[in-house]
Amino acid sequence: MLKLYYFPGTCARASHIALREANAEFTLERVDFMKAAQRGDDYRRVNPKARVPALATERGILTETPAILAYVAQRYPGAELAPLDDPYEFARVQAFNNYLCATVHVAHAHGPRGTRWADDPAALAELKRKVPETMAECFALIESEFLVGPWVMGDAYTIADPYLFTIGQWLPADGVDPARFPKVQAHQGRMLERAAVQAALAAET
Amino acid sequence: MLKLYYFPGTCARASHIALREANAEFTLERVDFMKAAQRGDDYRRVNPKARVPALATERGILTETPAILAYVAQRYPGAELAPLDDPYEFARVQAFNNYLCATVHVAHAHGPRGTRWADDPAALAELKRKVPETMAECFALIESEFLVGPWVMGDAYTIADPYLFTIGQWLPADGVDPARFPKVQAHQGRMLERAAVQAALAAET
Repeated sequence: MLKLYYFPGTCARASHIALREANAEFTLERVDFMKAAQRGDDYRRVNPKARVPALATERGILTETPAILAYVAQRYPGAELAPLDDPYEFARVQAFNNYLCATVHVAHAHGPRGTRWADDPAALAELKRKVPETMAECFALIESEFLVGPWVMGDAYTIADPYLFTIGQWLPADGVDPARFPKVQAHQGRMLERAAVQAALAAET
Repeated sequence: MLKLYYFPGTCARASHIALREANAEFTLERVDFMKAAQRGDDYRRVNPKARVPALATERGILTETPAILAYVAQRYPGAELAPLDDPYEFARVQAFNNYLCATVHVAHAHGPRGTRWADDPAALAELKRKVPETMAECFALIESEFLVGPWVMGDAYTIADPYLFTIGQWLPADGVDPARFPKVQAHQGRMLERAAVQAALAAET
């Protein structure tokens, strides 16, 4: 059986929702960020990168949200969570998820996790100051260029949707008014109506 | 026919090498970073993210290195550049590439591209100062945990290899002595012996 290592509110939520959308059998293992358990020796044996999510499978551990999301889609093809038989369309889904991972999540992380890239307190404050600007730039692109609607890729719900939902939930804490992005905001509302999303949010708390 | 938008020495090199490994028919389109052409209106119509690589296909533009690499592997299955029929092994390849994209490339970018996350000159200097430390941490993990050898995933050459090669080439400029990582260094040497790598390097200059 699969086991998802997570902490509430982190990007692990995207994988969590996808597992529920796929009707996968899995358990949740909470990594206690409040005690910095993600940096402890026990968890580093699971994921030496000291991050969530990690997905324990029968064959070993998988990490990195876009990789886990594609894995869930491929392992449960009946759930139709990605255009698996069309390399071009699959790549479009992956490109979207990669943008969230390598640009948008990274922009966000400069607030709470600036010490990854700087030690000086003044520099950390400067990184934090710029987060609302960079996150708003990212979501302006998502709003105008990438989010087709009603779902990210258009009519088909895919593994791009729980990931956008998860990162979009961070906007208020990042100092960005979600109302600036009506399509993103409508997408968030649509996601909140899904049973898998409601179940994931309930299970995290 | 495919067209790869690139600039020499950037991460676009990974896609470039993969296209050559696949014996793909493609042309190269140099985006002149010296004139900031990646931020010009013409290129933003190709890729509104104002970055390379972008791969123009018959059906549209693809972006993001891990997505393009998986696309090349899937479009040219005969080249055997990824374990396409094994979702778990495919996810391992993708997890490695995602780590390069969202953590290692990002660590590097805090040197030349710090203005993505800060404006203050002192903060930019602090970001630049920490790059050797963060890049060395990333490559220590790659050396000890991820690079199996002789290729990244073991005996099979995959789309993880040109990507590691490309980012590994940045180490000296990032202030990190590649000799600290003997497995990575041997991998770089192995890559330089491949015809596809030699052809890509020649074509870029």
